[in-house]
Amino acid sequence: MKLSQSFVKTLRNAPKDETARSAQYLIRAGYIHKEMAGVYTFLPLGYKVLKNIEQIIREELNAIGCQEIQMTALQNPEPWQKTDRWSDEAMDVWFKTKLHAGEQELGLAPTHEEPLTNMLRTYINSYKDLPVYIYQFQTKFRNELRAKSGILRTREFLMKDLYSFTTDVKDHEKFYQIAEQAYAKIYDRLGIGSDTYQAFASGGAFSKFSHEFQTITPVGEDTIYFNEDKSVVLNEEVLLPEVLEDMHVTRDELQSAQACEVGNIFTLGTKYSEPLGLNYTDRDGQQHPVFMGCYGIGVSRVMGVIAEKFADDKGLVWPENIAPYKYYLVAIGEKGNQKAAELHSQHPDLFLYDDRDARPGEKFADAELLGIPYRVVISDKTIEAGGIELTNRANGDTKVLTTDEFSSTL
Amino acid sequence: MKLSQSFVKTLRNAPKDETARSAQYLIRAGYIHKEMAGVYTFLPLGYKVLKNIEQIIREELNAIGCQEIQMTALQNPEPWQKTDRWSDEAMDVWFKTKLHAGEQELGLAPTHEEPLTNMLRTYINSYKDLPVYIYQFQTKFRNELRAKSGILRTREFLMKDLYSFTTDVKDHEKFYQIAEQAYAKIYDRLGIGSDTYQAFASGGAFSKFSHEFQTITPVGEDTIYFNEDKSVVLNEEVLLPEVLEDMHVTRDELQSAQACEVGNIFTLGTKYSEPLGLNYTDRDGQQHPVFMGCYGIGVSRVMGVIAEKFADDKGLVWPENIAPYKYYLVAIGEKGNQKAAELHSQHPDLFLYDDRDARPGEKFADAELLGIPYRVVISDKTIEAGGIELTNRANGDTKVLTTDEFSSTL
Repeated sequence: MKLSQSFVKTLRNAPKDETARSAQYLIRAGYIHKEMAGVYTFLPLGYKVLKNIEQIIREELNAIGCQEIQMTALQNPEPWQKTDRWSDEAMDVWFKTKLHAGEQELGLAPTHEEPLTNMLRTYINSYKDLPVYIYQFQTKFRNELRAKSGILRTREFLMKDLYSFTTDVKDHEKFYQIAEQAYAKIYDRLGIGSDTYQAFASGGAFSKFSHEFQTITPVGEDTIYFNEDKSVVLNEEVLLPEVLEDMHVTRDELQSAQACEVGNIFTLGTKYSEPLGLNYTDRDGQQHPVFMGCYGIGVSRVMGVIAEKFADDKGLVWPENIAPYKYYLVAIGEKGNQKAAELHSQHPDLFLYDDRDARPGEKFADAELLGIPYRVVISDKTIEAGGIELTNRANGDTKVLTTDEFSSTL
Repeated sequence: MKLSQSFVKTLRNAPKDETARSAQYLIRAGYIHKEMAGVYTFLPLGYKVLKNIEQIIREELNAIGCQEIQMTALQNPEPWQKTDRWSDEAMDVWFKTKLHAGEQELGLAPTHEEPLTNMLRTYINSYKDLPVYIYQFQTKFRNELRAKSGILRTREFLMKDLYSFTTDVKDHEKFYQIAEQAYAKIYDRLGIGSDTYQAFASGGAFSKFSHEFQTITPVGEDTIYFNEDKSVVLNEEVLLPEVLEDMHVTRDELQSAQACEVGNIFTLGTKYSEPLGLNYTDRDGQQHPVFMGCYGIGVSRVMGVIAEKFADDKGLVWPENIAPYKYYLVAIGEKGNQKAAELHSQHPDLFLYDDRDARPGEKFADAELLGIPYRVVISDKTIEAGGIELTNRANGDTKVLTTDEFSSTL
């Protein structure tokens, strides 16, 4: 993309009520726009980052046999009444609305266990129809009392939610492990693998624990407790004497850190299939409720965590795998501009070409604010020195490459 | 994809209240699932079709310099109050909801002129910042009194909405023509070009007419009036004596047909920029409101129209460009299954492989219901006869190709 054609401009200031550094940078760099507290528009570069994250998650889920669908925001109360989650007391994040026709009350889905379980009654009858793993990237609505930290906690956000349906706990546990491995791969590819811990969290009727994926960051709302030698990571709610004893670790052996939850996996058992009547017939003709699990990743939140995690005092720093472009291209002088225009036209998807009528210093500052992984400068000086100047945004390393050397890496 | 692994099954019956043929087929074939009246989940094959349509539109809009963003469903009343569209009287399709915090009323966006115009005040100040063309694929919510005809008229649907921002009517008209041409290309690529007419419709304060793109189909809610020799196409609301006179055509010279609106383009002028204060400064330092246009395509509706248009008495018939898979693969006998498994594993994105333990007749019936463009049969018989049997879903033409001949077309 040519920056001169972008409708977005970098901004000097973020809204005063944005306190999180990632939110300030994301707004100033023109990745997102704040509509109101907890509600953000994704601008072209931000939308690209979001879609890059989505695609990595999609690839890893497809690789383990998951099937993608898209459910709806509008919710019929009926299945939620059957599971006792329709009332605002049971689920305090509902946004509710009403149909004009007949004044029927509807909800905006904060999650999708009920409609998916309900829908599957159409398709699942026998043990032969199981297991199935179904996911979506879908906008969730949560009526949070306090939206905060930019896109880390919002009222409308993009979530990947995966649900597993198996005949029994044994098959469930097999898939649960496969999903754990897929999650580890996803966070690795997103560039936060080494700082993301799989923590024990409180479970439910069907499992002692659930698991949270927690990325260490000072803006995290959660505190995790860990001992790397003993491979123990706990979230705060399970920091209990009996749990420590189970894990053969004492409170003194645990370090603590602030972290942000970037995913969770949960054994649901038959919590939803029983009240909603999602049953299968086994080999002997006996009926059983289907055994379920759920596996979430907040896609827009992950983007916020990555922004927060890698930013420095000059701006954002995107990992290469999810950056909107790999190179930020700055030309100085006539020869430089000619060469830059050529490179950009050959590889429009690789280069964010800063062809604006602006001082080099302004372009360099925006290159840093925007956090594109590599800055490429082409000027009379770099052409004399051999070709182009390549600067790594993360560590500032600079080298001069001949145009051929550089072209061969594209 | 292997059909044995799909969680979706074809169904004998659609819900009784679905009267449109396309909706019945889309449900029976497992492309969509009805959540409630006017609200549909997209199942894996349906989601693929939707995404294929989206991608064609995206490519054509990017080619004319449009920039993709994603705005939000939740709407702050403020900008809508400024344009007098917040009340249910002014806009009768609002879904409204409330924040827990502070009881503030919010809306679910039925369209996005207000938030986009409002946001652009941050980025547009000078004539140098114009023109810009901004679009999104976004879920719209419309509180229709009557939802009907499956995904043709729903309460929650995927829409592509594009907005143009120019300095004046002259630049606006230039882009309007470019958008018209892009729309024509889009409908051509979607396979409905020859049956889609650009009809004059009523305009507004800034233009005598707007334009609707109307696809001829008996289930269409609209009636269009046309004379192909004189290149005149009118929708019902502009079938007025003065318009006919303007167009040099008499009522008797016009044929009529039922049609479904698959897109519209509209000159908005300064209807939104004036009340919202989106202004630019010209070369002489004078302020003017920005001149706007809007350009919509209902993506899920287009899918319904295409389904309706091409279906026959056996099921759906997808145009190749948007079909979820190009080939429906049926194997009979051991040799056939071996060869089919090989083809599928080499080209998983091209073949929907019906590897279910079912009679060939059942598979052939599902191939027709699902409307995949080509059916490929591999059996001992076809192998003896030379290789594979290829049947065109649209016209039933069948031919036998050697495996090499067929492979070379993949």
